[in-house]
Amino acid sequence: MRNRSMNMNLEQLDTPAAIVDTGKMQRNIDAMQARMNALGVSFRPHVKTTKCVDVVRAQIAAGAQGITVSTLKEAEEFFAAGITDILYAVGMAPAKLPRAMALKQQGCDLKIIADNAAAASAIVDFCRAANDTFDVWLEVDTDGHRSGLAPEDDALLAIGRILHEGGIEVGGVMTHAGSSYELNDSEALAALAEQERAGCVRAAERLRAAGIACRTVSVGSTPTALAAKHLEGVTEVRAGVYVFFDLVMANVGVCDSSDIALSVLTSVIGHQPDKGWVIVDAGWMAMSRDRGTSKQTRDYGYGLACALDGTPLEGCELAGANQEHGILAVTHADDLARRFPIGMKLRILPNHACATGAQYPEYHALMSDGSTEAWRRFHGW
Amino acid sequence: MRNRSMNMNLEQLDTPAAIVDTGKMQRNIDAMQARMNALGVSFRPHVKTTKCVDVVRAQIAAGAQGITVSTLKEAEEFFAAGITDILYAVGMAPAKLPRAMALKQQGCDLKIIADNAAAASAIVDFCRAANDTFDVWLEVDTDGHRSGLAPEDDALLAIGRILHEGGIEVGGVMTHAGSSYELNDSEALAALAEQERAGCVRAAERLRAAGIACRTVSVGSTPTALAAKHLEGVTEVRAGVYVFFDLVMANVGVCDSSDIALSVLTSVIGHQPDKGWVIVDAGWMAMSRDRGTSKQTRDYGYGLACALDGTPLEGCELAGANQEHGILAVTHADDLARRFPIGMKLRILPNHACATGAQYPEYHALMSDGSTEAWRRFHGW
Repeated sequence: MRNRSMNMNLEQLDTPAAIVDTGKMQRNIDAMQARMNALGVSFRPHVKTTKCVDVVRAQIAAGAQGITVSTLKEAEEFFAAGITDILYAVGMAPAKLPRAMALKQQGCDLKIIADNAAAASAIVDFCRAANDTFDVWLEVDTDGHRSGLAPEDDALLAIGRILHEGGIEVGGVMTHAGSSYELNDSEALAALAEQERAGCVRAAERLRAAGIACRTVSVGSTPTALAAKHLEGVTEVRAGVYVFFDLVMANVGVCDSSDIALSVLTSVIGHQPDKGWVIVDAGWMAMSRDRGTSKQTRDYGYGLACALDGTPLEGCELAGANQEHGILAVTHADDLARRFPIGMKLRILPNHACATGAQYPEYHALMSDGSTEAWRRFHGW
Repeated sequence: MRNRSMNMNLEQLDTPAAIVDTGKMQRNIDAMQARMNALGVSFRPHVKTTKCVDVVRAQIAAGAQGITVSTLKEAEEFFAAGITDILYAVGMAPAKLPRAMALKQQGCDLKIIADNAAAASAIVDFCRAANDTFDVWLEVDTDGHRSGLAPEDDALLAIGRILHEGGIEVGGVMTHAGSSYELNDSEALAALAEQERAGCVRAAERLRAAGIACRTVSVGSTPTALAAKHLEGVTEVRAGVYVFFDLVMANVGVCDSSDIALSVLTSVIGHQPDKGWVIVDAGWMAMSRDRGTSKQTRDYGYGLACALDGTPLEGCELAGANQEHGILAVTHADDLARRFPIGMKLRILPNHACATGAQYPEYHALMSDGSTEAWRRFHGW
């Protein structure tokens, strides 16, 4: 069996492995929390990025109030770990209501969301039959990229009323300007952050004017959270990938590649000198199939190779990936077998930390003394 | 907690879920095995596609002799399930030798591969120190797409000699013409299958002429296995994705979309009627980020939507995917909320069965009576 003893250093770990630089992670956590404090809002990190209790505990310790989840499995796992204030930020499917209610009845302060009349009616009917209730937030669409109701949509009030008159508390509105991932300019990001803020606040004001309380105004994505100039009317912000950052975020311009806390440890297993290729044991199973940088300013292939100490190796990108083979294309290809000997360990920075992490049952947290500690992460639904 | 009781039908399962149509799977298994029998070769399926003991038992029952794995974790899991004849088909990293030897010393007939002198020397040195041996196969490159030694390369014999003279049995040669995935024409596939066969046989002949036994000649990929006209000199074939097939293979032309045995069960959770979008709870976490059809004849986005009974819904493709949101773009977008009501269940055929399956801790095997059974799959390394 694989060696799982604690405190191995990077040279001793089996490959591939997902490495979390805990120093960088803590700096990312602290910087985001300080920013939220300065903006005068609560912070509710999205834990879908890591699905790891050890990481989320560090976010809570830094000042996060509650968490955001993308699946009920995440809600269950983090509730079992002692976190009670949880927003399930995917539109409620009626068939999932019993599972959500089971969590609530165990003491979880679970908020669910809706953006349509059918889901709102299903929630009302379910709660009536269960003789219980949910805190429901309405999802607002502020950038047209996915789900939600436009702030000026008549349906926003109609759905608010279905819930309100059905005895369900409309606890808030929430939006996610996910189109921020497509930008790479600080002015444009600040403008989108303002659009996200203004649209969500406007939706809350319309609901309140209609007699629906709507205490919470929740906005966010990593780029807009870092670009917002002010957050008047907003009560809380959500962001996920900032905790590790990744090459997509570096291209968006909200971090430097030196801020990226997640990397994939890999070993050299072969060479094709004529092609300038070093073959490594990090293929797409280790990196994920995410090619999020493919349409950005700089395309990193499946990732940017670094030396074992984390220093980027310029001209060394993971150009291709099969399931367990990565093809590292080296621009200056002379003497490959000597420069990248069989067994040499490298680290690859990922395009997308959420997708890469999801390939692993555990992270290896790299401590300041060079030792590592296994941090479990879960998967599935 | 999620309902895991047995025998739920598709309407009762939580979403997203990975569904295996066991009837289609068995037909795919039987057709491949029959083809291998007719070609007069052994068949060693690649189990990286499923990582699922239930599936592999059906492959063995149909006549497969041994398995191919892409990780030592797969070797360990399938050996624990009673399978002993295992080829680890990724170039050996020296640091993995102790873990491989532990398996061998428990009784696993594990074969490992090498394509370079450094790895061969490391194997010799390790075996000498361990006072034990490995059955090592040499990896041959027959299409230039990844790893391996060219059949005419002087290094092939040099590396064979390092092993042979170091007391290690060179049990065979193996090659994988993975560039077959880039073709879509039966003539070109047949030509590549012949190139794969001829190159691997030639490598074996050169080794034998040098006094190195090299009993096994192992070739294969799903497309070349299905396109080969004869396999003279080959002793065994490997293929993986044929067991489920997928949209990439349909584009290659080696299956029909109706042969695809893996689909993702999803629920409708919203609509954006102005855009012709149905929002479902199968995002990239459920489908994987694999966009393998993006450069093929027909680009299916993140997958092709089907009705619950598996009938493809023409003009309904998963055009976009966030982590837990899929955007189903519907060509004829009138009356979306009535045609795709909230809570409606659909099934999405994946681009790449290996990548999609990897997102799940289990498959739900759909039986002929409409019931399902949970089949565990494992992940990690």
